[in-house]
Formats: sequence, structure tokens, C-alpha cells
Amino acid sequence: MNIIDKIKFNEQGLIPAIVQDAESNEVLMMAYMNKVALEKTFETGYTHFYSRSRKKQWKKGESSGHVQAVKEILIDCDLDTILIKVIQTGGACHMGYRTCFFREITGNLEDLKIVKEKVFDPDKVYE
Amino acid sequence: MNIIDKIKFNEQGLIPAIVQDAESNEVLMMAYMNKVALEKTFETGYTHFYSRSRKKQWKKGESSGHVQAVKEILIDCDLDTILIKVIQTGGACHMGYRTCFFREITGNLEDLKIVKEKVFDPDKVYE
Repeated sequence: MNIIDKIKFNEQGLIPAIVQDAESNEVLMMAYMNKVALEKTFETGYTHFYSRSRKKQWKKGESSGHVQAVKEILIDCDLDTILIKVIQTGGACHMGYRTCFFREITGNLEDLKIVKEKVFDPDKVYE
Repeated sequence: MNIIDKIKFNEQGLIPAIVQDAESNEVLMMAYMNKVALEKTFETGYTHFYSRSRKKQWKKGESSGHVQAVKEILIDCDLDTILIKVIQTGGACHMGYRTCFFREITGNLEDLKIVKEKVFDPDKVYE
């Protein structure tokens, strides 16, 4: 029995995957996986996702070098969301932050406040 | 300017919201919000979600008492995923666990292993 047959992929064949820093427990990002991306993540030990805009799987960090080494893969009660704990190289966010969740919504939905610091310069990483 | 006009709700008018324990940093659950659920979350200080099966907003914990008091609401770089840090009463999972992510996928996608302990008896909480 392969667990992949029990997992509830959505109508597009995707499942949301939350990525969490295994050391700090910071939530780094959320992205979508299809079956192939999930299998590749298991096979290689590095996170792979499915890009809805580019319509293909990709290895996180393939261009930036900011890869995510998998420590643990958990699944929720409904078998429709994955949580992956990783060792993150560099930053998870293409905008230069360690986490994609670098802004807080404040003032009764009126403001976005940057609450994290950049860890790399995206202009130097993505050409 | 209301931030809600910038947020990218999907074609069903929903946005995924990751809920994280503000004290332990454990990821507790992932659920979907529509605009009304997000506004109610801000207004009341307690998480509200949209149920795709019941087709309506609901307050987390309305039947179980296991509410989530909001400490911080963050949004990701693409403005299409929310991260909410909360003080969780009881357990977030309807199956009796503190977190919905209580099972690990192991053995090259062959096994599901329970890695958390129950914090309440669902038969006594949900009638």
C-alpha cells in the first residue's frame, strides 16, 4: 500500500505543502505539490513543488541554490495538507527573506508592516 | 486602502490560512478563509474559516470550545497565503490532537506513523 494513493490531491491534482524550518520552527512558505513532486521529494530528500504558472515540477533552490533538505514529512487529519520540516539553505523567499511571511497585516486590515529582515539580495541571486 | 482588496483570493474566493501556535510554534492546522471569515477574524480576535463542505463561515471552536485567540496575522510575498499565530485552547484537531499534523509519512511513502499524543477525547467534545 502506497500512502500516495490515500492522499487527497485536489481537482487540479495538487496538495498544499507547508514548509517549516526544522530548527527554528519558523513557517517558511507554502507551495503546491503534485504526485511527481511529492515522490521526487521523498526520493531525493530535497523539496520539489509544482508550479501552477509554469505548469511543471521544480526543485526548490534549483536556480538560487537555496535548497531545502527534508527532515520530516507530516500529513493532516484529512489527508489533504502536508507539513514538511526542512533545513533551509539561505532564504526561502524569492524577495530575499528567510520566510515568505515577512509582512504583518495590522491596523484592522489597513496596513502591511515588514517584520523580518532580508537575508540575501535577490538581484544578485536571480539573474 | 483596505488590505483585503490587495489579497489574492482564489477562483472560489478563498485563501489558505496556516495556523501556528504562538507559544510553541507548532503548526496546528490549515483551513480556508473567505473575505467575511478574514474580516470576522480581525473584528473578533478569534479565528473564523469558511467550510467548503458546509458552504458557510464558522468560528473555530464554536462547538468544541477549542477557540484560537489571534496574536498576529502575517501574509506571504505573493499575497495568496495567510499565517496566523494563535493561543490555542484545547486541541486544534477534531480527532483529539493538539495539531492536525499528528502523523508522519515514513518508509518511502509506505507508512503513516502517529507521532503526537491525544489531548482530548473527541467523543466527549463533539456530540
